[in-house]
Amino acid sequence: MHEKCGVVGISLQDRDAARPLYYSLYALQHRGQEAAGIVTHDGFQQHSHVETGLVGDVFDEGDLGRLNGANGIGHVRYPTSGALDKSCAQPFSVSFKSGSLGLSHNGNLVNADEVRDELAALGHAFTSDGDTEVIAHDLARNLLEEDLVRAVRRTMGRIHGSYSLTIMHDDTVLGVRDPKGNRPLVIGELEDGYVLASESAAIDTLDGETIRDVEPGELVVLHPDGTGYDTYQLVDSDSTAHCFFEHVYFARPDSNIDGTLVYDARRELGRRLYEETGIDTDVVMPVPDSGRAFASGYAEAAQDAGADVNFAEGLMKNRYVGRTFIMPTQDERERAVRLKLNPIKTTVEGKRVTLIDDSIVRGTTSTQLVELMRDAGAEEVHVRIGAPPIVAPCYMGIDMATREELIAADKSVEEIREEIKADSLSYLSIDAIAATLETERDDLCLGCVTGEYPYDIDGEATDREVERPVIQSSLADD
Amino acid sequence: MHEKCGVVGISLQDRDAARPLYYSLYALQHRGQEAAGIVTHDGFQQHSHVETGLVGDVFDEGDLGRLNGANGIGHVRYPTSGALDKSCAQPFSVSFKSGSLGLSHNGNLVNADEVRDELAALGHAFTSDGDTEVIAHDLARNLLEEDLVRAVRRTMGRIHGSYSLTIMHDDTVLGVRDPKGNRPLVIGELEDGYVLASESAAIDTLDGETIRDVEPGELVVLHPDGTGYDTYQLVDSDSTAHCFFEHVYFARPDSNIDGTLVYDARRELGRRLYEETGIDTDVVMPVPDSGRAFASGYAEAAQDAGADVNFAEGLMKNRYVGRTFIMPTQDERERAVRLKLNPIKTTVEGKRVTLIDDSIVRGTTSTQLVELMRDAGAEEVHVRIGAPPIVAPCYMGIDMATREELIAADKSVEEIREEIKADSLSYLSIDAIAATLETERDDLCLGCVTGEYPYDIDGEATDREVERPVIQSSLADD
Amino acid sequence: MHEKCGVVGISLQDRDAARPLYYSLYALQHRGQEAAGIVTHDGFQQHSHVETGLVGDVFDEGDLGRLNGANGIGHVRYPTSGALDKSCAQPFSVSFKSGSLGLSHNGNLVNADEVRDELAALGHAFTSDGDTEVIAHDLARNLLEEDLVRAVRRTMGRIHGSYSLTIMHDDTVLGVRDPKGNRPLVIGELEDGYVLASESAAIDTLDGETIRDVEPGELVVLHPDGTGYDTYQLVDSDSTAHCFFEHVYFARPDSNIDGTLVYDARRELGRRLYEETGIDTDVVMPVPDSGRAFASGYAEAAQDAGADVNFAEGLMKNRYVGRTFIMPTQDERERAVRLKLNPIKTTVEGKRVTLIDDSIVRGTTSTQLVELMRDAGAEEVHVRIGAPPIVAPCYMGIDMATREELIAADKSVEEIREEIKADSLSYLSIDAIAATLETERDDLCLGCVTGEYPYDIDGEATDREVERPVIQSSLADD
Amino acid sequence: MHEKCGVVGISLQDRDAARPLYYSLYALQHRGQEAAGIVTHDGFQQHSHVETGLVGDVFDEGDLGRLNGANGIGHVRYPTSGALDKSCAQPFSVSFKSGSLGLSHNGNLVNADEVRDELAALGHAFTSDGDTEVIAHDLARNLLEEDLVRAVRRTMGRIHGSYSLTIMHDDTVLGVRDPKGNRPLVIGELEDGYVLASESAAIDTLDGETIRDVEPGELVVLHPDGTGYDTYQLVDSDSTAHCFFEHVYFARPDSNIDGTLVYDARRELGRRLYEETGIDTDVVMPVPDSGRAFASGYAEAAQDAGADVNFAEGLMKNRYVGRTFIMPTQDERERAVRLKLNPIKTTVEGKRVTLIDDSIVRGTTSTQLVELMRDAGAEEVHVRIGAPPIVAPCYMGIDMATREELIAADKSVEEIREEIKADSLSYLSIDAIAATLETERDDLCLGCVTGEYPYDIDGEATDREVERPVIQSSLADD
Repeated sequence: MHEKCGVVGISLQDRDAARPLYYSLYALQHRGQEAAGIVTHDGFQQHSHVETGLVGDVFDEGDLGRLNGANGIGHVRYPTSGALDKSCAQPFSVSFKSGSLGLSHNGNLVNADEVRDELAALGHAFTSDGDTEVIAHDLARNLLEEDLVRAVRRTMGRIHGSYSLTIMHDDTVLGVRDPKGNRPLVIGELEDGYVLASESAAIDTLDGETIRDVEPGELVVLHPDGTGYDTYQLVDSDSTAHCFFEHVYFARPDSNIDGTLVYDARRELGRRLYEETGIDTDVVMPVPDSGRAFASGYAEAAQDAGADVNFAEGLMKNRYVGRTFIMPTQDERERAVRLKLNPIKTTVEGKRVTLIDDSIVRGTTSTQLVELMRDAGAEEVHVRIGAPPIVAPCYMGIDMATREELIAADKSVEEIREEIKADSLSYLSIDAIAATLETERDDLCLGCVTGEYPYDIDGEATDREVERPVIQSSLADD
Repeated sequence: MHEKCGVVGISLQDRDAARPLYYSLYALQHRGQEAAGIVTHDGFQQHSHVETGLVGDVFDEGDLGRLNGANGIGHVRYPTSGALDKSCAQPFSVSFKSGSLGLSHNGNLVNADEVRDELAALGHAFTSDGDTEVIAHDLARNLLEEDLVRAVRRTMGRIHGSYSLTIMHDDTVLGVRDPKGNRPLVIGELEDGYVLASESAAIDTLDGETIRDVEPGELVVLHPDGTGYDTYQLVDSDSTAHCFFEHVYFARPDSNIDGTLVYDARRELGRRLYEETGIDTDVVMPVPDSGRAFASGYAEAAQDAGADVNFAEGLMKNRYVGRTFIMPTQDERERAVRLKLNPIKTTVEGKRVTLIDDSIVRGTTSTQLVELMRDAGAEEVHVRIGAPPIVAPCYMGIDMATREELIAADKSVEEIREEIKADSLSYLSIDAIAATLETERDDLCLGCVTGEYPYDIDGEATDREVERPVIQSSLADD
Repeated sequence: MHEKCGVVGISLQDRDAARPLYYSLYALQHRGQEAAGIVTHDGFQQHSHVETGLVGDVFDEGDLGRLNGANGIGHVRYPTSGALDKSCAQPFSVSFKSGSLGLSHNGNLVNADEVRDELAALGHAFTSDGDTEVIAHDLARNLLEEDLVRAVRRTMGRIHGSYSLTIMHDDTVLGVRDPKGNRPLVIGELEDGYVLASESAAIDTLDGETIRDVEPGELVVLHPDGTGYDTYQLVDSDSTAHCFFEHVYFARPDSNIDGTLVYDARRELGRRLYEETGIDTDVVMPVPDSGRAFASGYAEAAQDAGADVNFAEGLMKNRYVGRTFIMPTQDERERAVRLKLNPIKTTVEGKRVTLIDDSIVRGTTSTQLVELMRDAGAEEVHVRIGAPPIVAPCYMGIDMATREELIAADKSVEEIREEIKADSLSYLSIDAIAATLETERDDLCLGCVTGEYPYDIDGEATDREVERPVIQSSLADD
Repeated sequence: MHEKCGVVGISLQDRDAARPLYYSLYALQHRGQEAAGIVTHDGFQQHSHVETGLVGDVFDEGDLGRLNGANGIGHVRYPTSGALDKSCAQPFSVSFKSGSLGLSHNGNLVNADEVRDELAALGHAFTSDGDTEVIAHDLARNLLEEDLVRAVRRTMGRIHGSYSLTIMHDDTVLGVRDPKGNRPLVIGELEDGYVLASESAAIDTLDGETIRDVEPGELVVLHPDGTGYDTYQLVDSDSTAHCFFEHVYFARPDSNIDGTLVYDARRELGRRLYEETGIDTDVVMPVPDSGRAFASGYAEAAQDAGADVNFAEGLMKNRYVGRTFIMPTQDERERAVRLKLNPIKTTVEGKRVTLIDDSIVRGTTSTQLVELMRDAGAEEVHVRIGAPPIVAPCYMGIDMATREELIAADKSVEEIREEIKADSLSYLSIDAIAATLETERDDLCLGCVTGEYPYDIDGEATDREVERPVIQSSLADD
């Protein structure tokens, strides 16, 4: 269950949380388009509205009107490869003997099956095979015996993996980030309340001020009356494992993640890309939209270095090609890529072109783009990538591809260059990433570019000392 | 019935036209998102599939499979202000005693009511109040008495206004452009057939070659066997009335319209904007996506002129804010504009900013953007617009706004600047438009920026000698 | 909020309650077609699936699969005059600080507004204007202070009106019938559990044995392990107020209600109808389906009395004429009644006909049927009704009509006969009803045929001493 | 493609045909619930609205409003075993070079594949695998060379099988019945027009008068101005092959088919059933709804013969159990039959019961009903069937079952009695059918009860001389 998702939680002083939650989810829509949901609590009862679809389709005025209460959480869900399944949509809500829980999750547990099996043996019935329900049941169970903070700590001691959570226990909203801080989570202040969100852009949308990132292993408890919050550092960790791909690809350019503005990071990565691998051509051209900030930093660095290079938006992106697109048959000769990206001839014809993108996954698109450039009359096509080669899958919540599909899993850079038929191909170094993010390699999750993970995953190597909880005993002993 | 739409028509030698039509409509999707449709003819019977929705949602594999035949036409429809109405979706198809007709229309008739009234008096029942059905009935009626070319000419003598049409009479596909050439229409060649389309990008998508624009007043008849086409210059006109807004805003940057590549035109308009109105600031920033090419031309001209200006994509556009969006209430303080466009603080803070957009319609967005820039710390905010002020509505098929809503209808540039609270505001001149498009003012439709139209519209001035047909007599006399 | 509905509750020993609940709702579908729902509890959490539509459309296999747990309740909802409103569908479920509640309601409270206002003043937010939510909130509130039985008693002391309820508190299923026993509720035994249902036919459907009616004012608590049940006579009442219309029209013929089999009651009412008002004609004909059992009893009594009368099903009912039917316009002369009921000519032509129905509400249908008979060649048309004239509206949960619409509200029997143009018209006496049901008039709710009600309804007379609770004090004092 | 369907065609003098068509389809809804459609012609163009679903769901006011024209045809389609397929819904409409055709079909062709193959070889593209499209294409092709009557005759000479058709060629409505008259078709008169319909009940619904059955092999052409009709006896046949099952089961009781009122026929069949197989028991009980008229005739004959027998509606039918019903699992012990049919205990307990039904197909329901009776306390259960045993499948348009599924295909009556565990079982004789319908065995289609068919079906015997057209030559020679 690999998920890229967005989470949010809000506590207000004197108005319903539903509409601010709704606008926050709009701001986080890029993190998940499959489903959206809001759960609120009005002090007496919980209200929930969760459906498959985009935020704008999931909620109407009446839905928001029925979501009473000044406290609530929300979620947007990323489309997974499988079928649409409403039962996996979030926030997950459960009412049990000591109250009601709502839970929004971004990330991926490594040991969900073990925890689920243990709970199932104790009689818990699960309606989905998602991680989120496992966390919710475990936490609900602990809440029968412990207070809120202890119950969260106990559950954190039992689950292993990547998670940023917003939780609602009755009308109290919590935020939790896993001990390695793999997925982002920030806390912000509104005029009349507080907000937890995956990205700071959601706080901007509400005209709020971002206070800071939630720390790895930290629990934030918002006061249900919207007047403040308490924090508890429940688990300490020697190192962090921030996902660098949030900066490279996933997060919004206008979000601040772990101290860095994503847009600035991408421009800087682009500058370093020129410094490490720069080649002088007539045109520097981004693959829209993901390559734009890299290309602009790259072109700037080139110009600063005195190169006579033109930055041109020479690929026209068709924003309407979506999931329901019917693929051309092999024997029709239209190539799907021209539907998605059409070159603007005057920017390419007779020119040496540098194409800038953020990553190469399977290599198919790159191959097609290079061919497209040549068909449009490019004399040379050079490809520059603003991240290191992706050699291994992500287990932490980003559904990139299986190892077999990754072109860099078993090919050298030169072999990839041959396959995509570029005149030259270069990637950015891992060190440039760490330098740009002003951090150490050890504080990043580099699993997808090194094959060594900061969590204990079956059949994979780790790049540090990590220990997966032994579930059977922990419930008894804690 | 103001419509911005896209039309296409295809005749192939030996394969079904449905899939190429489908991909063409994808390429034209930006011209209309309300409805899409395809009508084909297999030599014996007509097949039709028309529905409200995006191209990707309207058709599935089975639908395409049922659209038999090597000849066909297609349409994408722009959302009008009224309710979704399937009865207005196109292509409009009608079977009558001398065969079947299919019709796709981009444009707007000035005298549709007169023609409809006359036909209704003759017993025709209309199922919609759209122009297209009027043209279809008139043409069908003429076909009972005339051959195809004469019937089209007779209908062209009776309708007045702006139209680019693709028509199918039984299995023959036709393209017609009104005598002033207001809306675009191009003809292209595929390996195994011919294609008519609103924009050349649709032909690119099929890996075809664009041959040329269809001439104003010209009829193009594709051979049903896909081997060629005939043309007939049915109506001559002293001047043309090309819509300059196709270049400024509506068409795809990668399309060639009436001899000019739209992307190049926008960059050149941007350059001229700097030349006419340039001001030196720290940052030049486009309003995405419409202002991007203008801003890049503007920044380039500034840099060429030696200005130390930074081109920055400092506004993050949220692509998910769509038609179903629930507006914030007045007493909530979140501003909708930050949902749609969020500033990237580091690009703005402490800087003098020039914002570049293609047009100002109502002024609301500009006001919000200027305020947003100041909130984000901009020291000065200058606004530059890549077109002249819009002072009058469009009657030719682009639904901009009513006269009352247009901020420039009764305000001077200085008054507008005050209202949007910019430090300075400048528009581009009409002459710069004509020069960029390498044409005369008299060959453009400038109705929306001068208030004088190239057609005879009730209650509006014209900028040339035009004559509306007197319908009652023409049917009898012709 | 007048509702005719069906309720059910089931506790089983060792299997999920969802499928038996589903089949029970099918058996109760005649009591409500607007919406259906099931709420279950698996010991840890509550599961709910409630939607508008027929039982067969509301649930699929996956829905039933997700409704885990051996305990659950269900509901079918009658279409009310207003718009479809999912928020009113039941069972209503709420999670609050001392657990979760599910509630299914058949009946109508007289003082719902007073209780709601008081709770709202205490901070409760209501999402619908239904009675059910009021009962649920009141009960939930009482459960914060009392044990289950006392909390139910306290709520029963505060609500006034007609109600048969199935309730689930966490995994405990309860059944409650109001102190007058207005709406039916029975308890039955399955091989591996117990069931509460509006009608015994639901128990038959599960191959169970009906044990007895729940007593007026009684609470039945099923053991969550399916092994038994406890009962508490919480409120005593001098008299009952059983709705006699359940026997006449609403319940299934194969259900046993308050000791009488509905089918036998209808046949007996038909016999008494002949005895009181019999007239000898050639044919006795039921209005299908409601008049069938009456007509068969009537014909039998006639034959026993030596009359040479033929029982004939001479009206063909079209079962497909439903809610979405488009009514004929006045100027079209087809009469809607022939769509619904078409006479079989050979059974009517040249004959004296007695038409038997269960009731006359507005009189429109009767008028049309009499005319239909005459058009088909009937020599005489006599109408006999198996119940007394309906002179007043029902406030107890059956949405018959407003007083203005009731033809008998201000017309004598002779005036009604004139209006429907029958040769003769007779109704059954109230005494015949009481005799048939082997009860006293005082133990029946006869509001709709006397205008005097067994509850304290604003602006209406009562036929006994009843007292509406004074809400403001009762919460404090209890 | 076995289809039980209903067809209708209407021509009016001065008002739109859409609403009368709509009400007619309601009256024919029992002949098909899968899809419904109407096609009209307003003199200039054809209008069509066809969708899957019940009549009441398929059309709204707007749909009817758009179906302009005083001439039109309609269709209701029976659910086939396969998936819902909109492409098979009818009326089928096609526009071709000499006008437009609409076609509604009830029946089943024996040689559809041959005709389709020949047409496909000539270049016709088919969008479904239905018979109707084959007839439409063949007729359209003939219309390119012949006048309307000759074209219909030519097509009738090429297709072989059972068909009752309503056709619209431009604005002319036709009705055709196959030369054996297998499926019903009647013609009726309205005050301002004429109507063709599968059953006379549809004409009753419009307050019209049924004129007569359309003759086998006859073509009826309605005048488009609603003032009259012409008839052509295009094909003569020595014998007819009326389906006797229309009287036994399929048609409405209030319809007149081939000279007999269905209700009277069923009562008479019931009387003969008693005469041939009568046994004296305490109760005679119909299986609702199909057995009701038989049982009433049977009971009457028994009483006339002096038997002391009670006619009782002792089985309560649940009208809501439909296609979306989720079947009980084997290990649940509820039996589905009690959901559909619940016995009223007082009518059965301690009694000898005779159950009357119209037919036994697979035997499953009969087995369950007998068991149900015994569970309810019946002392003896006798089963009497108002038709002969069904020993072979129907190829003429009624989808009963495959030969393997038919319990009587390879079992004697005594073996069937053993299987269903009845105390006795008897069927009606074929001669009683012929006598009741006042016809000869040779004029009935008895295929399903004899295994010998009146058409030339691959792999089956015929009961008369029939000749299937040799398609390849007939198109050339005609």
